[in-house]
Amino acid sequence: MPSVRVTRRLHFSAAHRLGRPDWSDERNQAVFGLCASPNWHGHNYELDVTVEGEVDRETGFVFDLKRLREAVEGRVIDDVDHRNLNLDVPWMDGVNPTTENLVVGIWGRLAGQLPGGVRLQRLVLWETPRNYVEYLGG
Amino acid sequence: MPSVRVTRRLHFSAAHRLGRPDWSDERNQAVFGLCASPNWHGHNYELDVTVEGEVDRETGFVFDLKRLREAVEGRVIDDVDHRNLNLDVPWMDGVNPTTENLVVGIWGRLAGQLPGGVRLQRLVLWETPRNYVEYLGG
Amino acid sequence: MPSVRVTRRLHFSAAHRLGRPDWSDERNQAVFGLCASPNWHGHNYELDVTVEGEVDRETGFVFDLKRLREAVEGRVIDDVDHRNLNLDVPWMDGVNPTTENLVVGIWGRLAGQLPGGVRLQRLVLWETPRNYVEYLGG
Amino acid sequence: MPSVRVTRRLHFSAAHRLGRPDWSDERNQAVFGLCASPNWHGHNYELDVTVEGEVDRETGFVFDLKRLREAVEGRVIDDVDHRNLNLDVPWMDGVNPTTENLVVGIWGRLAGQLPGGVRLQRLVLWETPRNYVEYLGG
Amino acid sequence: MPSVRVTRRLHFSAAHRLGRPDWSDERNQAVFGLCASPNWHGHNYELDVTVEGEVDRETGFVFDLKRLREAVEGRVIDDVDHRNLNLDVPWMDGVNPTTENLVVGIWGRLAGQLPGGVRLQRLVLWETPRNYVEYLGG
Amino acid sequence: MPSVRVTRRLHFSAAHRLGRPDWSDERNQAVFGLCASPNWHGHNYELDVTVEGEVDRETGFVFDLKRLREAVEGRVIDDVDHRNLNLDVPWMDGVNPTTENLVVGIWGRLAGQLPGGVRLQRLVLWETPRNYVEYLGG
Repeated sequence: MPSVRVTRRLHFSAAHRLGRPDWSDERNQAVFGLCASPNWHGHNYELDVTVEGEVDRETGFVFDLKRLREAVEGRVIDDVDHRNLNLDVPWMDGVNPTTENLVVGIWGRLAGQLPGGVRLQRLVLWETPRNYVEYLGG
Repeated sequence: MPSVRVTRRLHFSAAHRLGRPDWSDERNQAVFGLCASPNWHGHNYELDVTVEGEVDRETGFVFDLKRLREAVEGRVIDDVDHRNLNLDVPWMDGVNPTTENLVVGIWGRLAGQLPGGVRLQRLVLWETPRNYVEYLGG
Repeated sequence: MPSVRVTRRLHFSAAHRLGRPDWSDERNQAVFGLCASPNWHGHNYELDVTVEGEVDRETGFVFDLKRLREAVEGRVIDDVDHRNLNLDVPWMDGVNPTTENLVVGIWGRLAGQLPGGVRLQRLVLWETPRNYVEYLGG
Repeated sequence: MPSVRVTRRLHFSAAHRLGRPDWSDERNQAVFGLCASPNWHGHNYELDVTVEGEVDRETGFVFDLKRLREAVEGRVIDDVDHRNLNLDVPWMDGVNPTTENLVVGIWGRLAGQLPGGVRLQRLVLWETPRNYVEYLGG
Repeated sequence: MPSVRVTRRLHFSAAHRLGRPDWSDERNQAVFGLCASPNWHGHNYELDVTVEGEVDRETGFVFDLKRLREAVEGRVIDDVDHRNLNLDVPWMDGVNPTTENLVVGIWGRLAGQLPGGVRLQRLVLWETPRNYVEYLGG
Repeated sequence: MPSVRVTRRLHFSAAHRLGRPDWSDERNQAVFGLCASPNWHGHNYELDVTVEGEVDRETGFVFDLKRLREAVEGRVIDDVDHRNLNLDVPWMDGVNPTTENLVVGIWGRLAGQLPGGVRLQRLVLWETPRNYVEYLGG
């Protein structure tokens, strides 16, 4: 059977601040600019979760999108939506919440954890309508 | 000459219903949920057709987008736009019209059939603004 | 207190067919073209529901968007999503489901029916990304 | 000369939290739900600023969009972008930063303050791609 | 019958340059900045044409969108698409092609000229994804 | 450290005309259609620039998007924005400005020229909302 990639886009809104606690405020401002503002800022993130597999001969699905959505909500969205990425998310603890680190963190929450063993192929994470990161797990 | 991918996005609106005629209504509802509603539902589909090839030294084109559009309209869009994917489309006959099966069906209509032998590289088919499938022909 | 308009966008996917049962197929095709295809077609509709009122001094809300969403889901979306607008929707019974008639039908479901007596100001209904209707209740 | 409305869309990213300091955490959670999460959350806001006036016979402009952009950046965006709406913005001090209150606050920063006395006609403020408020100053 | 507004979005790509032939290059650069670049620049314009009227009891249409599209194509789009707004468009002759002047020019081509006497209610013209003008004919 | 792709979207507006100076007007019209209109036309281009690399252990960045933006502005956008691609851009001199040739030209301006030796992975160039090209440097 043909192998198809299936993507579901999900949404969350979160606060964060870039910086390292072991650096001075001046150094954080120099490296991270406005993103290091001490009282946080935030974004509407869009997350595209792509799984890949053979089309099931019986259902015509690679993977039921409703189950995919529920899995991503349970393992990612519920943890980050309307939360603070620096303070509230156990699996980002101690990690500077750049978009790069966040997409790698989300990968860790999903890869190997999706129902039925479906294979996670790619994550795309939009931080604003003008910048996004893409991770293939490598 | 460099090899470039060129994409044209096309649009169609169609009705469909997911399910298998050899299953009971109850089983179809259990597996396909609202998508198995007996009186059909429908979508505005967006189809991104990507071809790949060397840039022609004379024209600067990989492939004339107008010819690409006409080919996709003639072999795909005219068959599905304002149609019922379960009832009206000969090349989907007997196939459960999931987005996965539909993108594979469209591939079969286009691969090897484009003018000038241009190579189909990828299809992306959006069913809603929040989910899409991608097929590379493999 | 200032008077502000607050809008929530909702989504549904439905099948329909334009035409009048008292007209011949030929006349329906002549007037409604492809939209009269006998086996239905469908769309992803976007519905923008706007309410207007004074900002509440205590909460800073005109109206809680969560309650607005729930009201529109209960009175409109649940009836039309993944349904057939000609066959499945009691409050469109016997009405040709043009976008114009549909937006007027939705208005009838919401005006005067929103919690707390909040005033419906405007509905915008997108049938495709390139056409929409707007109704102010007049 | 004809009277035309001219709109410039601007973008900012900010953190906020809904709630009243004189209410208990329980009451804030009951009224504002996830939006009252104690450690903040945030959004990518889009702000559409519309001015209205007669087309200038000499330039063909109602108002130079570059000057409009600079005025909105100087009086609004620089104050809110990558900031915390509860803590960092003097003109929102003591105001619960709902989208309604924020659009009224922005109006206060712009109305009567635009160069050349151009008339502010409307503000539209998107908090997410699915909800926005509109204010005409009334 | 209820009165509804119906909008069709159309697209065109054109070149232009802002400036007055009776001004020096220096003055044009000072007033119009990069938009006065001598060798032209261009845009993908989006044009939203809104008509308003009572819903026809027989068809459920305010106005057939296909006829609206054809009328706008014939009277506007064919004249401006892939053209130079300063040099190629008779009804913009001698007019500085600002977005304001262009929307007024398009109004003149459509108002009172639509089939069946349908009433033009509003034009919205996007020059880029971040700025647009709106004209109600007043 | 994981390898992530980071993308920044930039915008420019330019005029162009397709055609070869060594061909007759008739032949240019036959091959390039409306795109060969003698007085130019133009587009709002969107350019997605993707770099790829390991996430820096210290900053959590693959590459600072602000530096990426500045580099692309300095080497590409400043040369093409509000310019004529046939007449004003030294690195497109003598090249027919098809989207294919333009993306290859932009690649030549960026590959090996980004600060810190970051690796350019992909360029996507949208000419209209319905067509784009993609180049991986091969």
